[in-house]
Amino acid sequence: MDYYSSQISNLIEELSRLPGIGAKTAQRLAFHIISMPEEQVERLSSSMISAKKNIHYCKCCCTLTDGEICPICASAKRNHKMIMVVENTRDLAAYEKIGKYEGVYHVLHGAIAPMLGIGPADIKLKELLVRLEGDVDEVIIATNSSLEGEATAMLISKLVKPTGIRVTRIANGVPVGGDLEYIDEVTLLRALDGRIEL
Amino acid sequence: MDYYSSQISNLIEELSRLPGIGAKTAQRLAFHIISMPEEQVERLSSSMISAKKNIHYCKCCCTLTDGEICPICASAKRNHKMIMVVENTRDLAAYEKIGKYEGVYHVLHGAIAPMLGIGPADIKLKELLVRLEGDVDEVIIATNSSLEGEATAMLISKLVKPTGIRVTRIANGVPVGGDLEYIDEVTLLRALDGRIEL
Repeated sequence: MDYYSSQISNLIEELSRLPGIGAKTAQRLAFHIISMPEEQVERLSSSMISAKKNIHYCKCCCTLTDGEICPICASAKRNHKMIMVVENTRDLAAYEKIGKYEGVYHVLHGAIAPMLGIGPADIKLKELLVRLEGDVDEVIIATNSSLEGEATAMLISKLVKPTGIRVTRIANGVPVGGDLEYIDEVTLLRALDGRIEL
Repeated sequence: MDYYSSQISNLIEELSRLPGIGAKTAQRLAFHIISMPEEQVERLSSSMISAKKNIHYCKCCCTLTDGEICPICASAKRNHKMIMVVENTRDLAAYEKIGKYEGVYHVLHGAIAPMLGIGPADIKLKELLVRLEGDVDEVIIATNSSLEGEATAMLISKLVKPTGIRVTRIANGVPVGGDLEYIDEVTLLRALDGRIEL
């Protein structure tokens, strides 16, 4: 790309390494960054560096945080006997946004995927089992409803059941506002199986 | 967004200021950046800062470059008597990628848009007129085929014609591989008007 100066090509190249950013988008972003006020470029750049340097796993639930323990694990208002297991911090945020869940979380940072060589040792499963040695009433498995998420849910349920702790899985069914016509068969069957008394 | 630590929220906020990056994408990018190797984050961050600091307009054609004069204006191999006027550096790159154009460029950094308050003084038009005082044979107007691009082309042609320099406009027509059925009427008419002898 020698029709751009090396500084621009460099920036485009670095930006295009980001997920979901193709060559065209990287180009557009690069030119936007060059046209931004210098303070804003510095803010963006330093927020990257500082997030990378200061963010690590919460010692308790393994979510990403800048303290030793995340605000949720540190809160006395939360029910520490109820643990919701999620695949990543974004999933945790999805439930936190609602603001109705009162328990704590455990973030696996992935799901088992034998085809991709991701086994139980590659996710934060050991850390969950250590937590279960404490005083826990229920483990709610909220991994994704994908092949990997389901396999992970099965494995966790197998590991937790012998301890006598209650293990639950969030429900499958028709999304609220969803049109039955467009919903796949497996979901429709699960919705039927999971029907509740009115 | 207090379900993320402030460092993460900060990064998400800065990223979502970029064009075409919504809240969800910013979130995804932020978590990706946190998971990247530290050297890569530093490379990305410093390439932004250095591009912002070192990139400025070429003294001759106004494209973005890190030298005083861009490589194209500095090249003895190019025909400096033929100037292609484009709206921005990406348009210049679009023609440079083909590698067939032998003249030089002039980058306007915009197009006149009276509705948005962008007048002739807000684009690099004065700089073009100064260049025309030198030895120039032809000005090829390659602004976009949008309302603003067309208005800019009209204005430039009006300003250049009295100098006796040849003024041309890149052709409108059916894109190669285009299906007539799906092409708008104005383009079809322009293609007919611009038909060439076989």
